[in-house]
Amino acid sequence: MPDVRLPMVQPRAGGGPPVFEKVAVVGLGLIGGSIALAARQVWPAGLVIAVDNKDVLEQAMVRHAIDVAADEPYVISDADLVILAAPVRQNIQFLQQLHEHIEKPVVVTDVGSTKRAIVASARALPPHIRFIGGHPMAGAARGGFAAARPDLFQGRPWIFTPHTDASGEALEKLMAFASGLGAMPKRMDAERHDALLAFTSHLPQLTASALMASIGAEAAEALPLAGRGLLDTTRLAASPAGIWQDITATNADRIRIALDALIARLTELRDHLDDAETIERIFDEANRWRERLMEGRE
Amino acid sequence: MPDVRLPMVQPRAGGGPPVFEKVAVVGLGLIGGSIALAARQVWPAGLVIAVDNKDVLEQAMVRHAIDVAADEPYVISDADLVILAAPVRQNIQFLQQLHEHIEKPVVVTDVGSTKRAIVASARALPPHIRFIGGHPMAGAARGGFAAARPDLFQGRPWIFTPHTDASGEALEKLMAFASGLGAMPKRMDAERHDALLAFTSHLPQLTASALMASIGAEAAEALPLAGRGLLDTTRLAASPAGIWQDITATNADRIRIALDALIARLTELRDHLDDAETIERIFDEANRWRERLMEGRE
Repeated sequence: MPDVRLPMVQPRAGGGPPVFEKVAVVGLGLIGGSIALAARQVWPAGLVIAVDNKDVLEQAMVRHAIDVAADEPYVISDADLVILAAPVRQNIQFLQQLHEHIEKPVVVTDVGSTKRAIVASARALPPHIRFIGGHPMAGAARGGFAAARPDLFQGRPWIFTPHTDASGEALEKLMAFASGLGAMPKRMDAERHDALLAFTSHLPQLTASALMASIGAEAAEALPLAGRGLLDTTRLAASPAGIWQDITATNADRIRIALDALIARLTELRDHLDDAETIERIFDEANRWRERLMEGRE
Repeated sequence: MPDVRLPMVQPRAGGGPPVFEKVAVVGLGLIGGSIALAARQVWPAGLVIAVDNKDVLEQAMVRHAIDVAADEPYVISDADLVILAAPVRQNIQFLQQLHEHIEKPVVVTDVGSTKRAIVASARALPPHIRFIGGHPMAGAARGGFAAARPDLFQGRPWIFTPHTDASGEALEKLMAFASGLGAMPKRMDAERHDALLAFTSHLPQLTASALMASIGAEAAEALPLAGRGLLDTTRLAASPAGIWQDITATNADRIRIALDALIARLTELRDHLDDAETIERIFDEANRWRERLMEGRE
């Protein structure tokens, strides 16, 4: 194992005491990278440790996002908080091995888009690994560290899914950490999280991907004619398969319910295209929910 | 019939000779209103005549979009060009009655989102009504005259669907008119237009409406958690039923083909959520088409 430790960055002056002294982020994508940037800005006295590949770590060093970094997990042995920010099933795998790298008590959370699978896998952890699932509701048009920004969580919900009664103090500290980064921490059952997100996040993603693939396959010559409507509706179609293979595999039952609901409605439209009443009913319903969705935004 | 003629607005100075001296716009929504605003700006020596209800006409007068206006069609009797800019089936109905209001030769076009139905209805018109179907590919987040803007057509395709060999001179003038308004005029067969637009416009609209209705019905409590992905994917869900009842009714066969293609892909995803290969294949395909869609934009 090569020594890839990168140079220490001096903590910046000022700021209050950090909620966690040493925060390790495993995976510096859009979310992990933004957490690192935000934590260093909010708590300059704290230390941000990162694990990712060397290319990403170099980008992060250039942007002063992290203090200590390596492409192997040995650097996290001293962390007070470990944040798993890789795709869901990599997070689960890493969580299972965490006790090999950390011997002292440590709080662990993740930022994955499904919660039941990782919460289930956390039930058998040794007691010094105090895991609470997490999911910051923040995103951007592009992923990866290049798109990371310290204000990504400002005003956004950050869900935590504690699964044991013993997690009181760890949960309190995690919620303070999320608040410190500008987010609005919320508690939610992992079951409920996955059922709701299947509709509000996973369904729109799969819809945008299926829509873009269908249009490309059947009407590619018309793409230059496309207007803003198609551009917006298919923006999510740029999302990479890698993250989503894990999300669909770990929330398949709930996503299936959501897809069935959409397919039923599309089929209803398909069978009633010249029935003004059906069109009006579904459009009116969509108008109302869209208005509700936009309440307090823009 | 009350005399609702509104005050004449003086044509502004400057500009080249108008392609059509007297342009009548029937329906001052986003598209009709933007045509009026653009035509008056580009050809101040020309006259813009409008037919709509009094509320809309007052808004248009305040914004100096039109010169002559009434809520009855008698004002268009002297027009050189009539642009039908109401919902598709209202345009068809108006087109059928046009000879009652205009006795001299006149060029007529429309701006509807389907072309076969109106083109078919135009085959039996008296010879002085020279109709060529049209469809400017321009839109905005909101509809109605309030959202109209003279630069709406700048750089956007504007499709014309001539259906007789006799339409040469009228087509040439219409294309010059569209170019004058900043658009890129294109010729296309009405059949092909409807087949392509079913995928690039009608399918995304119905998908956004069905998606928003499904999410609202099944996961309303999660709407405050929604991020930008859902907001973009459902932006079109704000579209009013009124326009779309006409579009879906006059392009039902083609929209059915598009919906079937999407439903097939959603069903494939539904049945393979834990199959990494299927997810990768459909996401990769969507990634590629999305890239193609964005070529030369942004």
